[in-house]
Amino acid sequence: MVEGEGEEVTFREDGHAAVDWAADYLERIGELPVLAQVRPGEIRARLPESPPEQGEPFGAVLRDLDEVLLPGITHWQHPRFFAYFAVSAAEPGILAELLAATLNSVAILWRTAPAATELEVTALDWVAQLLGVPRDWHGHIEDTASTSTLAALVAARHATGRNVVVCSEHAHSSVEKDARMLGMELRKAPVDDAFRMLPDALGELDDVAAVVATVGTTSAASVDPVAAIADRCAAGGAWLHVDGAYAGSAMVCPELRWAFDGVERADSLVVNAHKWLFTPMDCSLLWTSRPDAFREAFSLVPEYLRTTDEAAFNISEYGPALGRRFRSLKLWAILRCYGAEGLRARIREATRLAELFEGWVRDEAGWELCAPRHFSLVCFRAEGSDEENEALLERANASGELFVSHTKLNGRYVLRLAVGNERTTEADVRRAWDVLRDLR
Amino acid sequence: MVEGEGEEVTFREDGHAAVDWAADYLERIGELPVLAQVRPGEIRARLPESPPEQGEPFGAVLRDLDEVLLPGITHWQHPRFFAYFAVSAAEPGILAELLAATLNSVAILWRTAPAATELEVTALDWVAQLLGVPRDWHGHIEDTASTSTLAALVAARHATGRNVVVCSEHAHSSVEKDARMLGMELRKAPVDDAFRMLPDALGELDDVAAVVATVGTTSAASVDPVAAIADRCAAGGAWLHVDGAYAGSAMVCPELRWAFDGVERADSLVVNAHKWLFTPMDCSLLWTSRPDAFREAFSLVPEYLRTTDEAAFNISEYGPALGRRFRSLKLWAILRCYGAEGLRARIREATRLAELFEGWVRDEAGWELCAPRHFSLVCFRAEGSDEENEALLERANASGELFVSHTKLNGRYVLRLAVGNERTTEADVRRAWDVLRDLR
Repeated sequence: MVEGEGEEVTFREDGHAAVDWAADYLERIGELPVLAQVRPGEIRARLPESPPEQGEPFGAVLRDLDEVLLPGITHWQHPRFFAYFAVSAAEPGILAELLAATLNSVAILWRTAPAATELEVTALDWVAQLLGVPRDWHGHIEDTASTSTLAALVAARHATGRNVVVCSEHAHSSVEKDARMLGMELRKAPVDDAFRMLPDALGELDDVAAVVATVGTTSAASVDPVAAIADRCAAGGAWLHVDGAYAGSAMVCPELRWAFDGVERADSLVVNAHKWLFTPMDCSLLWTSRPDAFREAFSLVPEYLRTTDEAAFNISEYGPALGRRFRSLKLWAILRCYGAEGLRARIREATRLAELFEGWVRDEAGWELCAPRHFSLVCFRAEGSDEENEALLERANASGELFVSHTKLNGRYVLRLAVGNERTTEADVRRAWDVLRDLR
Repeated sequence: MVEGEGEEVTFREDGHAAVDWAADYLERIGELPVLAQVRPGEIRARLPESPPEQGEPFGAVLRDLDEVLLPGITHWQHPRFFAYFAVSAAEPGILAELLAATLNSVAILWRTAPAATELEVTALDWVAQLLGVPRDWHGHIEDTASTSTLAALVAARHATGRNVVVCSEHAHSSVEKDARMLGMELRKAPVDDAFRMLPDALGELDDVAAVVATVGTTSAASVDPVAAIADRCAAGGAWLHVDGAYAGSAMVCPELRWAFDGVERADSLVVNAHKWLFTPMDCSLLWTSRPDAFREAFSLVPEYLRTTDEAAFNISEYGPALGRRFRSLKLWAILRCYGAEGLRARIREATRLAELFEGWVRDEAGWELCAPRHFSLVCFRAEGSDEENEALLERANASGELFVSHTKLNGRYVLRLAVGNERTTEADVRRAWDVLRDLR
């Protein structure tokens, strides 16, 4: 151990100060501007050119977090964060990240982290039960859906010997990015007027490695008809990967489970617990009904990683990374502290708030809804040009009162309001609507 | 917000309890068995079959962390963890992870996380200065070296239009795994008797996309002759990626900087801050002298991600993932709290302890050193068969007193003792040596 800096203040004291900072932040977050009100380069210009030669106390880090960084933080935990897909880092998950960093388990192999390995399998089994995913599937955690889908495409190419990926034009951009990374050809299938993939347009699929169907697309949260797509994949011998990154978590509610019809026939499925299962970034859940295909694609055990634990299960043999941090701890903490009931209540409340907002838009002259609403995302616009809607969005976000994002649907600029933060109340959604109407 | 569970205990109180758990754990860690003393499946069998219906207090999570999970945790923070590459999650980094999870910044774009984006660029610039990496390189953070190298290979294939990867037989297994994922052909170059790639054996390289040179190989911490390999790559038009995942951090010490000779001519470089820069998992630093090549390979901005921040810089356009968590916060906290001086002191102490151990092996009859020692890794074995050495390793690890790993060098089973945890003292290394001699 190196003697020297910072011995006056203990880890325990610094830790209590950090927790107090976090508690204070979460208590006052509703008063902060949602979108950071800084210009590119402004934060960097406030930071020193070089690292310090001598160590500083942790208190200096906390001070600069407030004074230097905070103005440059877009507050994802803010109750009026409605952009992209709004997320929550629930308090048990935050504390579990502290514990995971303390333990610093590195699950390269079962032996190096038996608890992390087995808790990951258990937590994924628990979530599978909650979402209606078949329990005999293999599940593990990747960082983001980009990586989960990448892994699925690698397994699909390995299993089929084919090199084509098919998705709808509303699939997430990560599908195209992953295909490009892997050198796979991407084909985009057309959608119907509710932005759902048209299975009849898929063709024979006999040269296709994988079809990526989406349950809850990024632009409009539309739901591809998975069962019909599964029929096509079965006939053509193509792998079916389902991207439920956002909407998958909503399957904890039986009344929303229709959206997963056919998913039980998929080869792989991704649901981001960091999107709508209240888990801090990053925690992307990847299941497969074909674990052997993953293992054949990814397993590679060099001499320095061989062990004599014959019955052991190494998650690193089922995905791209070797080193794996203890991500399941936060997911487990949230499942424990919220329970199935708490998860359902939160999903239902977000959906109810989106439905309310939807109603206000529908009933107000000069505004229109732009896509069917299934979950907690409302796509809408004001009457007028694309430029006027874009200017409205910029004014609204610059106000600091709320943060909304946009997309294009049928060639038109559309605003997106996504409810997903667990702190969001009816008053927050009402305030967003008032601000948007006032600024129009 | 959903009313109900857990309102009696506040986040602040739970947080203080979590910090106390962490502080107690780190205080008593030296008394725990290093390697988890459980059988595969044992932890899972202790966990409930299903998630709870109602939420539980966070205290129940802390209780089960002690009672259920702790026996299944291999303690990477233990001062007698000497396996693979020993690592540390430094205390400022642990607390920064709490803060990062609290903020839950998701840096899909500059706008969504200006502070996270600009602190990442700044922290990478700071580390570049500390390691002697050219400051005009682009640097960002990936989760692991597997991903950093994957990204480099993707950029290399994109930039060269070629499909072959070359590395030595001592390169990390992730190079082979990445090449397999990408469908690239891998060729292994031979090494000299100090396990260094032989540049003269590389040939013309005129069909090669990338050569991966390693500074600090996994088995023996050998150092490939980067400058000579750079000559070859320049002549053949191949991309040069340098894997300094472990040893790169040691470049904070000028007396070890010889190992980076030629790295300034590389196209990309990976150094894992979570390996020997005292940062909690995960924090893999990836630099490139050719940021445009990365951007061309990875940039893809769909409509729903377009913004009007014209001068903004989106790190997601330079790597595989879209969603990115606030990893730079922990790195920044450690650079601040340790300072350049503190980092150098810790690297030197680990290297000194390894040198001591090396001397004990050299001076003891019946033991031998198996590779030159440059940094904090000692490769050694007892006289006798491979089976005897393997049995010795298993006995040592089963004792709970220390955790060492193995490799094969020149076809023989070799033990590896890596010093890297900042809590390791001379007494710990001495105890490891005593246990190994006693158990022989």
